[in-house]
Amino acid sequence: MPWALETKRSAFGIAPVTPSSAFFVRNNLPAPNESIVANRDDWRFEVAGTKQNGSMTLGELKALPIHIVATVLQCSGNGRAYFSHHPSGSPWATGAAGCGLWTGVRVGDVIDKFGGSADNKLFLTATGAESLPEGVDPNSLVVERSVPVEKGLEDSLLVWEMNGEPLPLIHGGPLRLIVPGYFGVNNVKWVKRIALTVEESGASIQRSGYRFRDIGESGSPAHPSMYRMPVKSWINGPGADDSEPVNPGQHTLYGVAFSGEHGIKKVEISADGGKSWFEAQLVGPDLGPNAWRSFVYATELKLGTYRFVSRATDNTGETQPREATPNERGYAHNGWYDPALELKVITKQSRESKPELATSSATALAAIPPAAISLSPLAARGKDIFIGKAAPSCGVCHTLADAGSAGIIGPNFNQLKPSADQVFSAVSQGVGVMPSYSKQLTQDEMRALAAYLAEATSG
Amino acid sequence: MPWALETKRSAFGIAPVTPSSAFFVRNNLPAPNESIVANRDDWRFEVAGTKQNGSMTLGELKALPIHIVATVLQCSGNGRAYFSHHPSGSPWATGAAGCGLWTGVRVGDVIDKFGGSADNKLFLTATGAESLPEGVDPNSLVVERSVPVEKGLEDSLLVWEMNGEPLPLIHGGPLRLIVPGYFGVNNVKWVKRIALTVEESGASIQRSGYRFRDIGESGSPAHPSMYRMPVKSWINGPGADDSEPVNPGQHTLYGVAFSGEHGIKKVEISADGGKSWFEAQLVGPDLGPNAWRSFVYATELKLGTYRFVSRATDNTGETQPREATPNERGYAHNGWYDPALELKVITKQSRESKPELATSSATALAAIPPAAISLSPLAARGKDIFIGKAAPSCGVCHTLADAGSAGIIGPNFNQLKPSADQVFSAVSQGVGVMPSYSKQLTQDEMRALAAYLAEATSG
Repeated sequence: MPWALETKRSAFGIAPVTPSSAFFVRNNLPAPNESIVANRDDWRFEVAGTKQNGSMTLGELKALPIHIVATVLQCSGNGRAYFSHHPSGSPWATGAAGCGLWTGVRVGDVIDKFGGSADNKLFLTATGAESLPEGVDPNSLVVERSVPVEKGLEDSLLVWEMNGEPLPLIHGGPLRLIVPGYFGVNNVKWVKRIALTVEESGASIQRSGYRFRDIGESGSPAHPSMYRMPVKSWINGPGADDSEPVNPGQHTLYGVAFSGEHGIKKVEISADGGKSWFEAQLVGPDLGPNAWRSFVYATELKLGTYRFVSRATDNTGETQPREATPNERGYAHNGWYDPALELKVITKQSRESKPELATSSATALAAIPPAAISLSPLAARGKDIFIGKAAPSCGVCHTLADAGSAGIIGPNFNQLKPSADQVFSAVSQGVGVMPSYSKQLTQDEMRALAAYLAEATSG
Repeated sequence: MPWALETKRSAFGIAPVTPSSAFFVRNNLPAPNESIVANRDDWRFEVAGTKQNGSMTLGELKALPIHIVATVLQCSGNGRAYFSHHPSGSPWATGAAGCGLWTGVRVGDVIDKFGGSADNKLFLTATGAESLPEGVDPNSLVVERSVPVEKGLEDSLLVWEMNGEPLPLIHGGPLRLIVPGYFGVNNVKWVKRIALTVEESGASIQRSGYRFRDIGESGSPAHPSMYRMPVKSWINGPGADDSEPVNPGQHTLYGVAFSGEHGIKKVEISADGGKSWFEAQLVGPDLGPNAWRSFVYATELKLGTYRFVSRATDNTGETQPREATPNERGYAHNGWYDPALELKVITKQSRESKPELATSSATALAAIPPAAISLSPLAARGKDIFIGKAAPSCGVCHTLADAGSAGIIGPNFNQLKPSADQVFSAVSQGVGVMPSYSKQLTQDEMRALAAYLAEATSG
């Protein structure tokens, strides 16, 4: 199954680069098999719509001039949870976004190598290498996206490195298209073909999907495609997800702001719903107009409840609106009102005497072990496998309160709350750096493990 | 035992940030127990030499104004291997350096919180929390370093985040001092105390260690301390460590350049030992005057052997010398001649017909399994433990050609070539994210595993 993993708000760092291990994952189809990253330089992709069509390998691509760009990737549906009309799709809050450093070659340089563009080409169209099931119209499923050819040739890159490491499979390795400043869907993973085309792709993901339209309308090429990301910001801490106690006194709020292609001019903070605003400080290196910028704001907090919001203005003068424009699929949320950081400031004493305050959010489970969970017989067998059969155990890489484990290499299950299907898929097929266990565990054992994780994290 | 892990030249990325997982490790003493990162915000450190001495926790520190700085950390002995007088110490080539993004609070702001500096203080002195054995003079072992107070107050930070993640234990978490642009030893890990002091620390690591002096002299306060890093650069690829075939045709060389506090103005490349120079292109975001800058240089390679060197000039006009100044401990190597990238450019056909060309470097073991190794009985037992006893096995995290494993989470043993002592220490005590196996394996089993790894990688 395709993965959709949201970065926990309290897991965003303060620095303007999101580590690969904490970077959100949103795949429309299951990832290709990990064999495609075994010999990365042998990866071959087609080049079409040029004067001399052909193909090249990643090894050959690396011989062209190399560029490095920092850009935010953000799912079009990030912030969907804040729309009141409950659009369909994953209810992302702030966590379907991250900022990375991407190393690769300009698409324009690749096109030049194949003799330049053939005539009348208006789009750069990229195709992912995901397997498609037989017997269905490929256009209904294929991940193939088109962006305007000027954008495609100007600053888009074919990249093989993320944050200084070989691009992980789960993030599109060995080869991904990066369209700086554009919504995530345009940044096609596992690129097997790039083409300059007269028309946009006929794939559903291009023709009807990812179109900004009024509530109730079906998507079509008449509607704007999800391209440039508008100005946006939010505050990440301290104390998001009830991750740490917030006591009265001095605190420094921190967060991120970005605007596709435009860069950030200023960020303001309000604690009174936008009646008064105070300018935050932009800190750390400026990674360019498509990256996000870290901001901080020092303030004194008294006992009580706070609702902090941030409002960014980009270098063209565009400022976040109070409310985002409602639209059928809940795309492009950038209102400043909704993604507030809500903080309960309490004394250490009152926290200790009223533990329900500290555990009121389900996400606090990550820090505080829950009461013993009653497990089904199948799940109980799975727990034995989780704790006992593996050495080092599953807990070496994963945190799970019920099992008393605190691994930090893989996802924290108390935060991820995986479904049994997700667990079974990961255990049987592997995912990212996690290997498949299908040679070590039987199907029944993997099902028991899946049942255990689902039950142990459903509270 | 303390760790010393070098970044393989071919493992450096092209982007100007080194991932934590690939970042070199050089500890003078064994790291504190991982329990110190269990509740990071509770970490307490002393502040002295101020008008109101006291202490504070990391949680309290986070309330002060937050800053983010990119800086290179580099061991004073990086490049020691290039000195012809064979100085004592780890024979680092290029891999005892990395560039990170560090998030923290200015030491100056901490000092202000304690009423400001007491009178006549000339140094900022920081002390690490490593355990010291009883019965020896603490000054002979303690990691305690002093830097001039102006530097300490101006731009030094107490940091808790590395590359957007909580600072890993092995890199000094929960709290480390960062002195931007200064050699690694000044960036004290596991900080338990900062003090403004009248005199430099009396610790050996300050008084006699890390002093730049003529060959044959003993270190003393009369010699310059290893502070600011001079201008330096090297080329990282393609093809370093025989990591990938280099065929005739177009190639893009890439590397890094830096100069403490000064930033990089230009980098030049020579393929003829410095007779002629060609300017490289600086690419990607500029992370500031203490970070390293990525450079690339496109060139056509014919069949044959090449020796490429790079020479950087910083923004003050300082240029790398041909040869570094020989000195007793082999510190501060920054000559451009020695750290050349040596490339054999051969056709694919000749490579296949003469495999010895591809395997001539011992480091190629990482890619090409060696012939079967003859193991001692103890090591043979260790191999069974490596492959069989653990599930997932050691190979899930580690690459080891003899065992046919290709894990990427932990060090690649074919590259690391660990000693039996190193392995025993890691397995019994744990290191970084790796847990201790002392509850799962007997002492004898751990010794067998250590013997196996030493024998299997000694080729």
